[in-house]
Amino acid sequence: MDMIESPFLKACRREAASFTPIWLMRQAGRYMPEYRAVRSRMSFLELCRDSDAAAEVTVTAAERLGVDAAIIFADILLVVEPLGIRLEFSQNDGPVLHNPIRTPADVAQIPEVDAAAEVGYVYESIRKANAALKVPLIGFSGAPFTLASYVIEGGSSKNYIHTKSLMYQEPDAWHALMRVLTRTVVAYLNRQIDAGAHAVQLFDSWVGCLSPFDYEQYVQPHMRELIHAITPGIPVIHFGTGTNGLLELQRAAGGDVIGLDWRIDLAQGWQRIGHDVAVQGNLDPVTLFGTRENLRRQTKNILDAAAGRPGHIFNLGHGILPGTPVDNVLALIDMVHEMSASSSRGS
Amino acid sequence: MDMIESPFLKACRREAASFTPIWLMRQAGRYMPEYRAVRSRMSFLELCRDSDAAAEVTVTAAERLGVDAAIIFADILLVVEPLGIRLEFSQNDGPVLHNPIRTPADVAQIPEVDAAAEVGYVYESIRKANAALKVPLIGFSGAPFTLASYVIEGGSSKNYIHTKSLMYQEPDAWHALMRVLTRTVVAYLNRQIDAGAHAVQLFDSWVGCLSPFDYEQYVQPHMRELIHAITPGIPVIHFGTGTNGLLELQRAAGGDVIGLDWRIDLAQGWQRIGHDVAVQGNLDPVTLFGTRENLRRQTKNILDAAAGRPGHIFNLGHGILPGTPVDNVLALIDMVHEMSASSSRGS
Repeated sequence: MDMIESPFLKACRREAASFTPIWLMRQAGRYMPEYRAVRSRMSFLELCRDSDAAAEVTVTAAERLGVDAAIIFADILLVVEPLGIRLEFSQNDGPVLHNPIRTPADVAQIPEVDAAAEVGYVYESIRKANAALKVPLIGFSGAPFTLASYVIEGGSSKNYIHTKSLMYQEPDAWHALMRVLTRTVVAYLNRQIDAGAHAVQLFDSWVGCLSPFDYEQYVQPHMRELIHAITPGIPVIHFGTGTNGLLELQRAAGGDVIGLDWRIDLAQGWQRIGHDVAVQGNLDPVTLFGTRENLRRQTKNILDAAAGRPGHIFNLGHGILPGTPVDNVLALIDMVHEMSASSSRGS
Repeated sequence: MDMIESPFLKACRREAASFTPIWLMRQAGRYMPEYRAVRSRMSFLELCRDSDAAAEVTVTAAERLGVDAAIIFADILLVVEPLGIRLEFSQNDGPVLHNPIRTPADVAQIPEVDAAAEVGYVYESIRKANAALKVPLIGFSGAPFTLASYVIEGGSSKNYIHTKSLMYQEPDAWHALMRVLTRTVVAYLNRQIDAGAHAVQLFDSWVGCLSPFDYEQYVQPHMRELIHAITPGIPVIHFGTGTNGLLELQRAAGGDVIGLDWRIDLAQGWQRIGHDVAVQGNLDPVTLFGTRENLRRQTKNILDAAAGRPGHIFNLGHGILPGTPVDNVLALIDMVHEMSASSSRGS
C-alpha cells in the first residue's frame, strides 16, 4: 500500500494535512487486553522473536485504536544481544543485562559482529505487519547513549553512576563503545527500512540525565553520524525524555521530527528548535488516568500550541503506562482527530 | 555569631563577595565516614529526632568540608507525621508512608493540628547547631507538591500516577490538601527561622514531573502564597530538579534564590529567570565520581557561565550520592573557592 500521502508521513515532511496525525508510544502494551491475551501464551522476549505474534500485536493495536501510524513490536535492547549481552526481562518487564560492560577491557572484548544481521526476526515482523497494515509502519532502535546506559548499568538506573563514570574516567573507552553502538544502530535501522519501515524512531529515552555540556561532548557527535547514515528519504524521529536543556543540541545532531515530552510548552519548544523541523508530542501519559474533561483541555492546549502548523505529530511524551484505561486512549485519539480537523489549518 | 556579611548570605542578596560561596545538598550523608559512624548507633529517624546528634552531624559536615553554609540535619517528611502519616524509613533510607492519602475522604480526615508545633526537636537541633557553627545555617522543608506526592504515593514514585490522578480527578481535594500542606510548611519554616535559621530552602524535588500547564494550575498559587508568608528578610531558596520547563513559573511564584539543576546551562537559565534573582547550582552530582581533571573542567564551566555575577551559590544540582568519594568533595570545594577568588568579579 502506498503510504506516501498518509497524514503521518506528510507531517514528518511538514506538509499540511486535513488533521493532526496521532500514534502513541507503547500502543501495543500491557494496558490493552488484546496484548495481555497474547502475552499470556508467551514471554516478552518470545513475543519479540516470534514474527507472527509480533506482527499481530502491532497490527491489532493500530486497528483497535485507529491511530495514524503503527510501530513495530520489538524492544530497544534486542540489537545488543548479538554483541554478547545476556538479556533477560524480569516479571514486570524490566530488563536485566547479566554481563554489564563497565571497563575499557569490557569494551575491547565486544565481538566484531554484524549484530543487525542477527535479529532477522525483527525484519520478518516488519514484513508481516506491513502486509496487513493500512497505515505507515515505524521502525525503531534505542539510541547509542540509551543503549550504552543499559549495557553499562545492567538495567534501568536512577542516577547513571556507572555510565557517567565510564564517560568521565575513560573517555576513549566511552567513545569506542558509542562507535560500536552507532554502527550497530545504523545497520539495524537501515535493515528495518529495507524490510519496509516507512519511518524510524531513535529512542534516546534516558539522555535527559545529561548536562548540555556532557551531551555535546559525549553523545552529539555520535548521534550526528548516526542520523546522517540513515537511508535518505526516510523520516527520522529523534526522541528523548527530560531533554528540555538539550533540544537545540539534539536538533543540531539531526532528525526530521524532534520529540517534545510534556515538561515543556510545545509552542516554546518548537520555537527554540525552529519551525523548519517537525515535532512529536507532548501529552503527559498520566493525563490518560484523569477525567475526560481534563483530557480534552490538555489535548486542546497542545493543539493550540501547535497552532495548526504543519509538522506536528500528536503523541504522549513517553509510552502508555500499564493500567491506563483503554477507553481514555480511544477518546484521546478521537479528540485529536476531531479537534484538529475542525480548527483552521496553516499551510 | 553575626552572619549577615557571610559570602553565602551576601550571595542570597546578590551582593558581591570575594569568592563564590558553596554548600552541598546532603552534605551530611552516607558518603561521609563521620556520618556513618553516628548512624551505626541509631536509625535515620532516631537521628533526626535526637537534637544533639542532629546538630553534631550538621556541624561536623560543615567543618569537615569547609563549606560556606550548613543545612540542618532533618528530613523533608518529618513535618507530615503530626498530620497522621505513619512514616518509616526502610533499610536504604527510602521513605515508606503506611497510610497514603488518596481520596477526598482521606483529605477531609487530616486532623486540624498545628503540625509545626509537634516537631520541636528540629528547632532544638537548629539552636544547638547554631551555637557551634561559624557559617550560616539553612533551615528547610519539602514544598507542598513534593510532600503531597509522598503522602499520596506512600513513598517515592516513578510516574506519580496517584498524585496526578488526584489532581486531575478531584481538583477540590487536591487544592484542599495543598492548602493544609502550605499552611503547615509556612509555620514550620517560620519556627525554624525563630530558632535561628539564617535562610530556608524549599525542596520541591519532584515538581519537575509536571507540565508547565499543570504546575501553573495546581502548584504555583500555593507556592506563591507560601513564599509570601515566610518571615521577611530571610532568604528563601526555591529548589527543584528537572524544572527546566518551569523556571519562569517558579520564579514568578517567588524566592530569593532559584535552584538550577545540571540539565540546563546556568547562563541560559539565569538569563531566562532574570538577573534580579540569585541562582543556586548546577553541578551534576555524578561528576564527583569522575576524574579530578573532569571535575575541574565542569566546575570551571559553571563559574564561567555565572561570569562572576553576584548572586551565584555553587551547589550540586541534587544531593550528594552515597558512594561519592569524600576526597573529590573536598577538592570541589577548594576548586570553587580558588577559581572564583582568582577570577575577576562583577559587582
